[in-house]
Amino acid sequence: MELVFLGTGSGVPSKERNVSAIALKLLQEQNSIWLFDCGEATQHQILHTRIKPRKITKIFITHLHGDHIFGLPGLLSSRSFQGGNDLLTIYGPEGIKDYIETSLAVSGTTLTYPLSIIEFTEGLLVEDEQFCISCKKLEHGIPSYGFRISEKDKPGRLLVEKLKEAGIEPGPIYQQIKENDVVHTDDGQLIHRDHYLGPPKRGRVVTIMGDTRSPEKTMSFVRDSNVLVHEATFGHEKETLAKAYFHSTTKQAAALAKSSNTDKLILTHISSRYQQGDDRKLLDEARHIFPNTELACDFRQINIESK
Amino acid sequence: MELVFLGTGSGVPSKERNVSAIALKLLQEQNSIWLFDCGEATQHQILHTRIKPRKITKIFITHLHGDHIFGLPGLLSSRSFQGGNDLLTIYGPEGIKDYIETSLAVSGTTLTYPLSIIEFTEGLLVEDEQFCISCKKLEHGIPSYGFRISEKDKPGRLLVEKLKEAGIEPGPIYQQIKENDVVHTDDGQLIHRDHYLGPPKRGRVVTIMGDTRSPEKTMSFVRDSNVLVHEATFGHEKETLAKAYFHSTTKQAAALAKSSNTDKLILTHISSRYQQGDDRKLLDEARHIFPNTELACDFRQINIESK
Ligand SMILES: [Zn+2]
Ligand SMILES: [Zn+2]
Repeated sequence: MELVFLGTGSGVPSKERNVSAIALKLLQEQNSIWLFDCGEATQHQILHTRIKPRKITKIFITHLHGDHIFGLPGLLSSRSFQGGNDLLTIYGPEGIKDYIETSLAVSGTTLTYPLSIIEFTEGLLVEDEQFCISCKKLEHGIPSYGFRISEKDKPGRLLVEKLKEAGIEPGPIYQQIKENDVVHTDDGQLIHRDHYLGPPKRGRVVTIMGDTRSPEKTMSFVRDSNVLVHEATFGHEKETLAKAYFHSTTKQAAALAKSSNTDKLILTHISSRYQQGDDRKLLDEARHIFPNTELACDFRQINIESK
Repeated sequence: MELVFLGTGSGVPSKERNVSAIALKLLQEQNSIWLFDCGEATQHQILHTRIKPRKITKIFITHLHGDHIFGLPGLLSSRSFQGGNDLLTIYGPEGIKDYIETSLAVSGTTLTYPLSIIEFTEGLLVEDEQFCISCKKLEHGIPSYGFRISEKDKPGRLLVEKLKEAGIEPGPIYQQIKENDVVHTDDGQLIHRDHYLGPPKRGRVVTIMGDTRSPEKTMSFVRDSNVLVHEATFGHEKETLAKAYFHSTTKQAAALAKSSNTDKLILTHISSRYQQGDDRKLLDEARHIFPNTELACDFRQINIESK
């Protein structure tokens, strides 16, 4: 479970930062990749990574501003050109369906794979055996959302020593115990799984927030994140501008991380007014409040670790 | 008057070639730049040139396939973001208006400049004091067009020696003679401009053709081009495939250049199946038929010279 930052700029692409896109690699978990936002030239950025477009099975769109969606039609086409066959599902705010369908229809693009487009409002978006994804509306000029990706807890490991003490020797029975609440052994014992499992392994939580001002209002939504990805379009010196443009500052994002029991904060969506030389200042502003902060740059990869 | 190739690939971007876009720089002539096609990430390519998006005043779209238009919404937005104020006119086949208007509306994009979108069919598109641009329908899977950009002839130079022989000495009168068919001198002479001008300077002709098969059918449209830009999606070995996909080969494009009294042929829209190592072979196939052929690569600049 890793994040790969494909575009960490804001508004317009620059030579240093492309517009927004983040890949969540779930290759071990699901043999698939999920994408969060898809600014123009996301497929070009992908050419410089090991990501294969046909492995992308879900795309989540935080909001419809051009720097978050103008790469969609091209990526969808190329995924088809490269022989993708698997269902692709796109989750986005109302309007995403019109945009995608018009782009594909006008350009005469037919896809080799089934495409499902789901327009959401708020709440639980996806639940499968491993993950829940829910979304929350934020405060931006147009409807903008944050996503909370929660991995489900995994059962603890089998307590082999304890089983042996109870006279149950290793064999196929161990697998049965793992998979069932209660198992009858050949010699008539009743084995309750609960007694022979260690503590469950807590699932990881990643929250990826769209463009927003007043991030403090999302505290309960991001609570206990292992990794919180938040925009910091502006440094602290532009707090007034940030508010007027419905964006956040470095310090506001850090304050959210601090108050929400987050492990690690990644700042992204950096305004093109900042140059590489400003990275240190932006990062220091946030770290002063929340030390475990990183500033994303294009192609940076972050492992999501359990607490 | 120079061409800058911004994207010379076909279908999907590769690390070597982006999807289609060509800039025609008319900085001396009009202090503006015209763009032909605008595949995804054309604005990213422009970041690596000296082209300023606000100098782009006209965009011509050959056809609506995604690799020729998916860069439009982003370029339009960035031109606005960077403070463009001048009118931008987009000429494209039917459907271009729906695509652009939907993209801008869904993304909540408002432009700082007036935008005019003209859907054309065939014939004369633009005529100003310096240029005529006409278009012709080609043979492709969807309506696709070629553009002929003809610079108007310029009057010849003033024949100073001949004027002196007629007793007319240099002075403000020379400018008057240049600007008027007939001038009365102070001493009552009638000066007919025609008698005192050298031969007119022939305007230059650039033809930029969209995706097409059977290029030989456009011979009269491209006749006498100083530069002909033509697709060569495939090499000669894929002639059957080219026909099936409504594309041209190296040799077909070269045969068109040869039969049309063209000065220089530039091949572009090269299939991503070809690697850099194939450039020599593709070029040689064409040069065998039409020696003055070049193979475009991204960022290549070509001066348009008079005959
Ligand atoms: Zn944004
Ligand atoms: Zn094409």
